[in-house]
Amino acid sequence: MALSGVEIRAVPGLPMVRPGDDLAGLIRAGLERAGLLPLQPFDVLVVAQKIVSKAEGRIVEVPSVTPSAEAELLGAETLKDPRFVEIVLRESVRVVRARPNLIIVEHKRGWIMANAGIDHSNVGPEDGVERVLLLPEDPDASAARLRDALAPGLGFAVVINDSFGRAWRRGTCGVAIGAAGIPGLLDLRGRPDLFGRSLQVSISGFADEIAAAASLVQGQAAEAQPVVLLRGLRWDVPATDAAELVRPPQEDLFR
Amino acid sequence: MALSGVEIRAVPGLPMVRPGDDLAGLIRAGLERAGLLPLQPFDVLVVAQKIVSKAEGRIVEVPSVTPSAEAELLGAETLKDPRFVEIVLRESVRVVRARPNLIIVEHKRGWIMANAGIDHSNVGPEDGVERVLLLPEDPDASAARLRDALAPGLGFAVVINDSFGRAWRRGTCGVAIGAAGIPGLLDLRGRPDLFGRSLQVSISGFADEIAAAASLVQGQAAEAQPVVLLRGLRWDVPATDAAELVRPPQEDLFR
Repeated sequence: MALSGVEIRAVPGLPMVRPGDDLAGLIRAGLERAGLLPLQPFDVLVVAQKIVSKAEGRIVEVPSVTPSAEAELLGAETLKDPRFVEIVLRESVRVVRARPNLIIVEHKRGWIMANAGIDHSNVGPEDGVERVLLLPEDPDASAARLRDALAPGLGFAVVINDSFGRAWRRGTCGVAIGAAGIPGLLDLRGRPDLFGRSLQVSISGFADEIAAAASLVQGQAAEAQPVVLLRGLRWDVPATDAAELVRPPQEDLFR
Repeated sequence: MALSGVEIRAVPGLPMVRPGDDLAGLIRAGLERAGLLPLQPFDVLVVAQKIVSKAEGRIVEVPSVTPSAEAELLGAETLKDPRFVEIVLRESVRVVRARPNLIIVEHKRGWIMANAGIDHSNVGPEDGVERVLLLPEDPDASAARLRDALAPGLGFAVVINDSFGRAWRRGTCGVAIGAAGIPGLLDLRGRPDLFGRSLQVSISGFADEIAAAASLVQGQAAEAQPVVLLRGLRWDVPATDAAELVRPPQEDLFR
């Protein structure tokens, strides 16, 4: 349908998130401060993966890990700490490409990505122990919990986004790893084009485009704003999840 | 830098674009109607590839094409009209994957994409002659011409976007194939993270995220709004182009 406009608004002033924090409560307070309450139908809250992972305590202390023989070999090949590589392998089903300074895997949830999405930065080293942050265990479920805690039954949506590299494009792009209340894909096949012909290839990665749009405002580094609200979107098909954005292996020509 | 918000506004009421049309003039009139003039520094106008290609007359009459032997073979393999395949091959440097109903090529400008971006739909068949629409010859130059015609010297940017499939994700996503006045990539390496460490992997595909965001409002099919304006973005590095988003072959692990 034709939209006149979409607003992407930052939710500023969120405190540093720690394991066990009530993320929905922190976000609700941020929305209140930003004047964005009450939430409206078709509002989409986009939450950066990092704070979801932190609230869910998805933190591993690197010194606690004993690398397997496979991790030792892959660490040598990629010049990476074998304990870090071991953590990557535990989150993955398969190594897709390995080069010095690069490990691309198929994550347990099907994402093809570097390092299984595991991040060194932004996990506090307060006590000198090196820690890394895993992706949420089930980001679609995480998104559904946030939606239900914030505005159940409203027709309001939550997307959890991360930044992925791309096979043939430089730079990362925001991607939906979790979603609730929104279609992951918008299938427009069969709708008429301007001349009444059927559109030929017209399944859009709707939740991914939302994730990318949010990423523009979330920013990075010290100025990060991990939560943003998109207002003004519309959709007319049932909500699904972000899992449907993962291309199944049998359709994949590049693994 | 921290942004408080970004607005994505449709520029409605554009007429059907035809070869030779003054696209900048049509867009200026649309911006005026939408109350979006004067343009402001850091405004980013995103224009769908289709109308740029049409204005530039990038239309080929399919019956005028004689397929090569290679096109005949590839047409048989992919179940596509050999004349269409010939047009695809002329725009490409290499076939990356071919299957029934699918041709993925490396376009002359480096994009890995289906059908060299050539579109059957939305080219009028008024006289019964089948036509297809090629991508603009040089979309970075097309973007620069539009910028200079609309607001030279303002610090205003133009992005030309298209929808690309992705290797490991279902659904298409808006991508920048042309850009002027804006950095294609934002390289944040070396900026401190929240704990003062350097960010490790933090080159964002800035113009691609803009292209994806715009795509949410552009829509598709009969309701298409091919021109949108993003207002509220900021950047603090020099403008480049969309060509820098193309991963060079020597960095590419998946072709």
